[in-house]
Amino acid sequence: MRDDVILYGARTGNCLRVAIALEELGIAYRTAALDLRAGEQRTPAFLSLNPLGKVPVLQVRSPGNSSLVIAQSNAILLYLAKRAGGTLLSLEEDVYSPLALERFLFFVTDVIAPNHASFFLRSEGCDEGCRLMEQRSLDALLASEGFLENARFMAGQSFTLADIAAATIVAALSSSIDWMVHPRLRRWFACVMARPGVKRGMTAFD
Amino acid sequence: MRDDVILYGARTGNCLRVAIALEELGIAYRTAALDLRAGEQRTPAFLSLNPLGKVPVLQVRSPGNSSLVIAQSNAILLYLAKRAGGTLLSLEEDVYSPLALERFLFFVTDVIAPNHASFFLRSEGCDEGCRLMEQRSLDALLASEGFLENARFMAGQSFTLADIAAATIVAALSSSIDWMVHPRLRRWFACVMARPGVKRGMTAFD
Repeated sequence: MRDDVILYGARTGNCLRVAIALEELGIAYRTAALDLRAGEQRTPAFLSLNPLGKVPVLQVRSPGNSSLVIAQSNAILLYLAKRAGGTLLSLEEDVYSPLALERFLFFVTDVIAPNHASFFLRSEGCDEGCRLMEQRSLDALLASEGFLENARFMAGQSFTLADIAAATIVAALSSSIDWMVHPRLRRWFACVMARPGVKRGMTAFD
Repeated sequence: MRDDVILYGARTGNCLRVAIALEELGIAYRTAALDLRAGEQRTPAFLSLNPLGKVPVLQVRSPGNSSLVIAQSNAILLYLAKRAGGTLLSLEEDVYSPLALERFLFFVTDVIAPNHASFFLRSEGCDEGCRLMEQRSLDALLASEGFLENARFMAGQSFTLADIAAATIVAALSSSIDWMVHPRLRRWFACVMARPGVKRGMTAFD
């Protein structure tokens, strides 16, 4: 019997990245969509899964075993990569090559986190802070043009968690990117968005 | 012959966390301190190690092998935990138990990243944004009181990357914490700061 894998989430970057990883790894799963505006992440049932009341949450029910519950999108991504034997962390390279991990965490802390900060500041009515953090996120993102100088993907010749982390944030910021002066990023983005797994993952909560 | 391990850094939380991990794992290393105000992270020599011009950078020179260079504090922490066989990721538990990873990344993205944002906003003169992000970081940090309800450490009964991630940010925010209403956090902090490895790591760049 196969594991029963449920992704609780909504149409946010954090959730879509997990959906893309599941798709790219060919792991069968089903989505449980939460209406965040209606506060469904604060129901007792959901809080019993994640006391912090945040999506995504991945639940893996294995036959005969207790169910595994993981919150935190980045922990889920690293868990899935490990479960798959490192596929999304560049197994083709030296096992100690940490480039995929390094680039993945670069996008997480230097691009996505400032973007989350800008969203939060906007929701608090702090327009100046919002603008500053949005620019900071974009500046870091555009530095990734350099990662693609001799590489097809963000951390070398294979698709990794670094590409998954970058994909949703590039999609979110695409109208702010001057694509003419970032030809490598443009080529990479077209290539990544054309992948069947990415396409399915991006629409997992539609 | 042993590896020659060099930690390039300065007295910042990102660098101190790596120093603590090296100390806790008993890995012999030496520090190479950079004067960030003097811009030593922008010299050609340092940029050849990390083109993004940021500390920390870990360099591992193995006899007979090319040198391994990792930037990005969180990638270094995960690399060191993996190199040590998972010691700092709760090997005592089920190998698939992702709690240490989940909590580690919670501190990285929900506490440390907003704190970095507040520093950046202050440097840009956006006091309102700075205050909002500082409060957001503190609110997330104080939620960790719940992690310690039945646990000695942030992710269970053993010291993990989650504790390392939390240690430097709790130290940084300690004057903003109302310790009387967070007795578990107070007990945890005293216990963690008394560890010889944490003590040595915290002063690695003094």
